[in-house]
Amino acid sequence: MKLAVIPGDGIGPEVVREGLKVLQGVVPTAEFTEYDLGAARWHRTGELLPDSVLRELREHDAILLGAVGDPTVPSGILERGLLLRLRFELDHHVNLRPARLYPGVAGPLAGDKAVDLVVLREGTEGPYAGNGGLLRKDTPHEIATEVSLNTYFGVERVVRDAFERAARRPRKHLTLVHKTNVLTHAGQLWSRVVEEVSMEYLDVTVAYCHIDAAMIYLVTDPARFDVVVTDNLFGDIFTDLAAAVSGGIGLAASGNLDVSRTNPSMFEPVHGSAPDIAGTGTADPTATVLSIALLLDHQGLPEAARRVEAAVAFDLATRQSGSVSRTTAIGDRLAALASS
Amino acid sequence: MKLAVIPGDGIGPEVVREGLKVLQGVVPTAEFTEYDLGAARWHRTGELLPDSVLRELREHDAILLGAVGDPTVPSGILERGLLLRLRFELDHHVNLRPARLYPGVAGPLAGDKAVDLVVLREGTEGPYAGNGGLLRKDTPHEIATEVSLNTYFGVERVVRDAFERAARRPRKHLTLVHKTNVLTHAGQLWSRVVEEVSMEYLDVTVAYCHIDAAMIYLVTDPARFDVVVTDNLFGDIFTDLAAAVSGGIGLAASGNLDVSRTNPSMFEPVHGSAPDIAGTGTADPTATVLSIALLLDHQGLPEAARRVEAAVAFDLATRQSGSVSRTTAIGDRLAALASS
Ligand SMILES: CC(C)[C@H](C(=O)O)[C@@H](O)C(=O)O
Ligand SMILES: CC(C)[C@H](C(=O)O)[C@@H](O)C(=O)O
Repeated sequence: MKLAVIPGDGIGPEVVREGLKVLQGVVPTAEFTEYDLGAARWHRTGELLPDSVLRELREHDAILLGAVGDPTVPSGILERGLLLRLRFELDHHVNLRPARLYPGVAGPLAGDKAVDLVVLREGTEGPYAGNGGLLRKDTPHEIATEVSLNTYFGVERVVRDAFERAARRPRKHLTLVHKTNVLTHAGQLWSRVVEEVSMEYLDVTVAYCHIDAAMIYLVTDPARFDVVVTDNLFGDIFTDLAAAVSGGIGLAASGNLDVSRTNPSMFEPVHGSAPDIAGTGTADPTATVLSIALLLDHQGLPEAARRVEAAVAFDLATRQSGSVSRTTAIGDRLAALASS
Repeated sequence: MKLAVIPGDGIGPEVVREGLKVLQGVVPTAEFTEYDLGAARWHRTGELLPDSVLRELREHDAILLGAVGDPTVPSGILERGLLLRLRFELDHHVNLRPARLYPGVAGPLAGDKAVDLVVLREGTEGPYAGNGGLLRKDTPHEIATEVSLNTYFGVERVVRDAFERAARRPRKHLTLVHKTNVLTHAGQLWSRVVEEVSMEYLDVTVAYCHIDAAMIYLVTDPARFDVVVTDNLFGDIFTDLAAAVSGGIGLAASGNLDVSRTNPSMFEPVHGSAPDIAGTGTADPTATVLSIALLLDHQGLPEAARRVEAAVAFDLATRQSGSVSRTTAIGDRLAALASS
């Protein structure tokens, strides 16, 4: 397995180091090549994602990204020029984001509210297409547009993968999250596709939920969700709240998948570069390690993936509440557990 | 005060009756005219909002709406044809939605997390403009677009009102919620307007928060928000979660304001018509009563508004936990408290 690694900025390199430790434990033959991308490189050279680097990234089996960004980079630069560019260039149409409240983890909700869901967020179109503009900029007559582009092609492939995954889960339940009553054009397309594809997966039950109502359910009854499929922007919002109710983005993993396997998929913790704690050795690498599990699954190594997840579950269940674990200590523990 | 009343469907008429009871207690001279709009009328006549009715509505000082809808009306019909049409025709550019966790109310969050914020959601543009379309409908080459339209005119007036309100609150803090790092065109406009208007309100502190991060903060640290200003769609999502963490949409009030007072403003509970409990006499009219308080404020009767709010606060703090209060009993109590 040839892996491209983008450690990035802030705590990125720290959590990536532990993730690789765990990966090497379960796949000793994995090879890594590091790529220097992110805020630091941009500050130094003005470069975001040189074409030559993109070409090299394509030659790998998968990509692991830590986190990029620091507060001195203007908003939008790294997002458009690096993170979203990677997703779009590498056709990462399924943004896979599981959310699970592990035993031993204190969530923000009162009572014991089980969370065990997986979101398939469309990753290459919708409001993220970058389509829109400004007219009469910087005048009192300015108009700004943002165009959400939704294609049958793009919606069908993520919906189909969502049904595939739902069919393999015990509950076999799929929820479309959208705002079909207001965004009626895109809503019609999404609804039609879900209805069509559902005909091929008769054992999967299907539900629909408006994005606003979904926010309420995530804090009052998260167990109603099993597999969730949604558009790029609603997915961004839904997955942050889903992460919050399952213990925080510090534990949230994600995979940016090209399900067709034409391009390497990319795995990254959902959290950012957390400049405030960078260098203190206290960043929690668990989200990165769980992203490694997604990577192993995608690379056809489900047994290794389950071992990594089991290691995380054991570690979270046995952590002393209130005790601070150092980044490297957690990595060492998880690597030992996963490879034992 | 001449009030147009749209009781609507399901529990709408039940909660409106109690709201009017409270209003009559504090403003005995208020006059009401009922308008029959909603799912029932649509089923009977196919009509949503006849022009003649719209003309009559305009002749009133304010509008009170209960809730419209039932599960047999296809999604989008009442939304586009009635609810959103009212907001757009009557230029309800400030959708005002306070969220407050009252003492005595059990929220879904662990621990005691104070919530006391007010959202100003833009109400007449953004992704709700209805702009978009379908190409190659019902084919495998279908494309659906949704265009978010944002004007300086539209953004400035809601941002200005948000600063006005922030300046009158003890904390004097305003947060712009958006997704400026991805929706860069609309994001630039919103950011510029907030920066510009902030120059006129030097005692108001200003923060920015991405909509996805805002979801996390609402469940981990809702006290960071005081006044929130945001676009139509983000506001829809933010306010449902804000309502959830302050005890549920059963308590959430809203005002659809034309701040210029050219058209009557409209007040409504955020909850829907709840057909499952309609007719059982158990709907909680509190959200409607709190919407009456917003109405009184808007009509220049702040003392009456404070009395209604104080009545609600007292009632919520003294309700027996677990005991079911009947709709009319709550209304009677609140009317007596507010007018005493
Ligand atoms: C950084 C940003 C562009 C990104 C997104 O909006 O997709 C992030 O919020 C995420 O969820 O991965
Ligand atoms: C019913 C629907 C059109 C409406 C909206 O999206 O604005 C509702 O969710 C609300 O928040 O008032």
